[in-house]
Amino acid sequence: MSYQDLEKYMNKRQALNAALTLFSWDQETEAPHESVDKTSMYIGELSRELFDTITNEDVIKILHELEDEDLSLKQQAVVKHWLKDIEKLEKIPAEEYQAHSELLLKGQHVWSEAKLKNDYASFKPYLEKIFKEEKRFAGYRQINNQPLYDILLDDYEPSFTMKELDAFFNDLRNEIVPLLKEIQQSDHIIDKSYNYKEYPINKQKVFNKYIANYIGFDFNKGVIKESEHPFTTNFHNCDVRITTHYYKNNLESALFSTIHESGHATYEFNIDDDISLTPIGVGTSMGMHESQSRFYENMIGRNPLFWKNIYPKLQNFFLDNLKDVSYDQFMDGINKVEASLIRTEADELTYPLHIMVRYEIEKKIFSEDVDFDTLPQLWNEKYQEYLGITPKNDTEGILQDVHWSSGSIGYFPSYAIGSAVAAQIYAYMKEHTHLESWIENGQFNMIKAYLGEHIHQYGAIYNTNELLIQLTGESFNSKYYIEYLKDKYTKLYHLKR
Amino acid sequence: MSYQDLEKYMNKRQALNAALTLFSWDQETEAPHESVDKTSMYIGELSRELFDTITNEDVIKILHELEDEDLSLKQQAVVKHWLKDIEKLEKIPAEEYQAHSELLLKGQHVWSEAKLKNDYASFKPYLEKIFKEEKRFAGYRQINNQPLYDILLDDYEPSFTMKELDAFFNDLRNEIVPLLKEIQQSDHIIDKSYNYKEYPINKQKVFNKYIANYIGFDFNKGVIKESEHPFTTNFHNCDVRITTHYYKNNLESALFSTIHESGHATYEFNIDDDISLTPIGVGTSMGMHESQSRFYENMIGRNPLFWKNIYPKLQNFFLDNLKDVSYDQFMDGINKVEASLIRTEADELTYPLHIMVRYEIEKKIFSEDVDFDTLPQLWNEKYQEYLGITPKNDTEGILQDVHWSSGSIGYFPSYAIGSAVAAQIYAYMKEHTHLESWIENGQFNMIKAYLGEHIHQYGAIYNTNELLIQLTGESFNSKYYIEYLKDKYTKLYHLKR
Repeated sequence: MSYQDLEKYMNKRQALNAALTLFSWDQETEAPHESVDKTSMYIGELSRELFDTITNEDVIKILHELEDEDLSLKQQAVVKHWLKDIEKLEKIPAEEYQAHSELLLKGQHVWSEAKLKNDYASFKPYLEKIFKEEKRFAGYRQINNQPLYDILLDDYEPSFTMKELDAFFNDLRNEIVPLLKEIQQSDHIIDKSYNYKEYPINKQKVFNKYIANYIGFDFNKGVIKESEHPFTTNFHNCDVRITTHYYKNNLESALFSTIHESGHATYEFNIDDDISLTPIGVGTSMGMHESQSRFYENMIGRNPLFWKNIYPKLQNFFLDNLKDVSYDQFMDGINKVEASLIRTEADELTYPLHIMVRYEIEKKIFSEDVDFDTLPQLWNEKYQEYLGITPKNDTEGILQDVHWSSGSIGYFPSYAIGSAVAAQIYAYMKEHTHLESWIENGQFNMIKAYLGEHIHQYGAIYNTNELLIQLTGESFNSKYYIEYLKDKYTKLYHLKR
Repeated sequence: MSYQDLEKYMNKRQALNAALTLFSWDQETEAPHESVDKTSMYIGELSRELFDTITNEDVIKILHELEDEDLSLKQQAVVKHWLKDIEKLEKIPAEEYQAHSELLLKGQHVWSEAKLKNDYASFKPYLEKIFKEEKRFAGYRQINNQPLYDILLDDYEPSFTMKELDAFFNDLRNEIVPLLKEIQQSDHIIDKSYNYKEYPINKQKVFNKYIANYIGFDFNKGVIKESEHPFTTNFHNCDVRITTHYYKNNLESALFSTIHESGHATYEFNIDDDISLTPIGVGTSMGMHESQSRFYENMIGRNPLFWKNIYPKLQNFFLDNLKDVSYDQFMDGINKVEASLIRTEADELTYPLHIMVRYEIEKKIFSEDVDFDTLPQLWNEKYQEYLGITPKNDTEGILQDVHWSSGSIGYFPSYAIGSAVAAQIYAYMKEHTHLESWIENGQFNMIKAYLGEHIHQYGAIYNTNELLIQLTGESFNSKYYIEYLKDKYTKLYHLKR
């Protein structure tokens, strides 16, 4: 067997995957309303075909033989990655996997109704069953008696376990929760009423395109479109697409989601040509991907240096609304801390506290025999404890996120990992490169090239920790993130240190 | 074997076909400029997979067994249709087919360069080879010693042969060429300078959307987008998409292409649910499809009855440009005859003459040993003879169309067949339904329902002639088309009869 034997299947795998990605992109951004029922037949067929290609008997044979062959680093990574995909699929009995897929489809539907009607009771049996089955599946995959929740964490963030995450969230709990309380008691009031004036959507589109281009989004290899919720998708390193959602009465929303998604896109643009059309030709993990989007959104996009040259342009562009808003007021505004109930609307400081709530609840469900009737109450108590506010109802409480209904358990922590990794990279680059001058002078080609060289080009060859160690000499830790947040918000709110 | 055995393969065939359609739609309307090289790997893989699915050995076995089974009409049609696909692919040796595909890819590239540079000489060897191979392939498929060109005609318009087409084009030559000469000598001058004023594209978009909706384009099941050349594509009867191309200085161009493509779309919207997800769930032939688009574009869209209610709206919408253009002047303008060199810009009367030139040249190449050096001259002579004008160069002469470079030989006649079929249906409906009142009163649901019931719902179950006979009692003929054109243009140009 040679690597070429695998390539035949790999091209088919990649093509089917790309077709499914395209159908998904199309459904989110363009397909007519009534198309979904019939189109789901196509999606089902292509998914089945993809599953069959990934788990094909010949493929498994080839992969196992290739493990002992003398392969290049990239080839080894493809084989390892593929074997990991199979391992997961092989250990779960096909009929259980199929039944679970159907449960998730139904679960998402029930969740969306329940959220609309503030009706946790109707979703509860699904939630309970989804967790139960995910636990059972993790059991099938267990080796060395490791905790079951660790198995799910590894799916989204390879090599991360509760051990690292407990330490990380403990630090957040000890440092950020008190910091937030201080801010909430501070008398530094930030007026960002300007942000909620009327900003015509057509004008927003023009400015968003300008800013995407400014920070290096390559329109020859990319597309920006609209969808209900912003996201990034990609077909290869020459076709990367992002979406945003414009609100007439919120300037920041689309602006920062464009910057955020451009960060994701930069990762995918920078993947090495050699691996772009392979299964490892994508960002290495959810957390590392999120680190790049947060790096662009927060470390760059909410950085006063960034806006030095750009704010006058924005102000001029929306002169009616912004003529009396100074640069300093705008800097305060885009960094304002407002504890809120909805994760997706959270500011940079409170965001990880939303994640901590979810992490703790997932962990608890996995470690104990939890009464699912008590979860809404638990959720609300944690919000009160960490953010100082309590949901009025379950729609803005435990029902707010789609993740659990779609079986994405162990996914949430990667959002917080992303923020911390971003801070870690930022601290390193600030010291060892001209990052701040690049940001101030709009030299995004330099930033893109640096991140490309040290992180992006490798796709999924290395995991998050390997990349961090290679770049900064240190593995993942909370130190830089907490320092960054404390330093930034102490200054912003004129707190005593 | 049962029909269900086939359905498994059919779903896969349809899903792969839909994926390829989506990639093609995406490339034409949205994909970033530099995506094509890598994306072509996906397209190649999916095409190969589709080819393998259609010609799968099990499938062939199932199909042959099903031929003798007791199947429903729709099932029989699927089996027949599929066997016809295979027959074509089976008889051509795989390696020759593959080499020809590569020749066509290259041929299109060379053609597009040659057209740009007015360099027939560089394209000539490709053109010659493409025709030679197409002839050879037709030879492989020949049965009963029928003319080779008939085999290609049948690919685009099943059951049509040179016998019908010669009679048809003879009538056109005898009747329409002299009519055009009369018009060219008439002293009725039509001023349509208004059409070339500046019409802001954003405003055009709004009006085009309005008119598409007015004539029954269903936006819950359809999408209108922009592309270089207008086209219609579809995934099933709940997802049909059309494009148009807006020109700032040409009001008619986008307007009539929207109406034209809406005619194509109406066909696909109306396909019966039972066959929508099968290979026969599409319009039956190029000619019948074109008849529906021409019916909407010409019989309806250039009909004074249609504009009675709509012209005031158009006039009001573009008041600056149209305030001094009367309804009568607009009716004259949209029906003005102007012999031109470019097929795609031709008016309703001269359009079939452009097709006649191409038909005669294709036929000649197939029947004799033609010297390809003489073709540009032959082309130009025929334009002089039929249209009274001569191309200044090959770019606006023999190099203008993409068809031959992509191996679409025998395709052109279906454009003219479409116009004639449209006229035949129009004559029948005018007499046997309230068509004219429907057009005048904008009752497009009635028109859509009538065409749906008699033509569209059947997809590819019946061919063009079968549908015409079922509806009108007559098979394809030139009579109604020629009567329609003579009547319309004699009146428009105040000619003596």
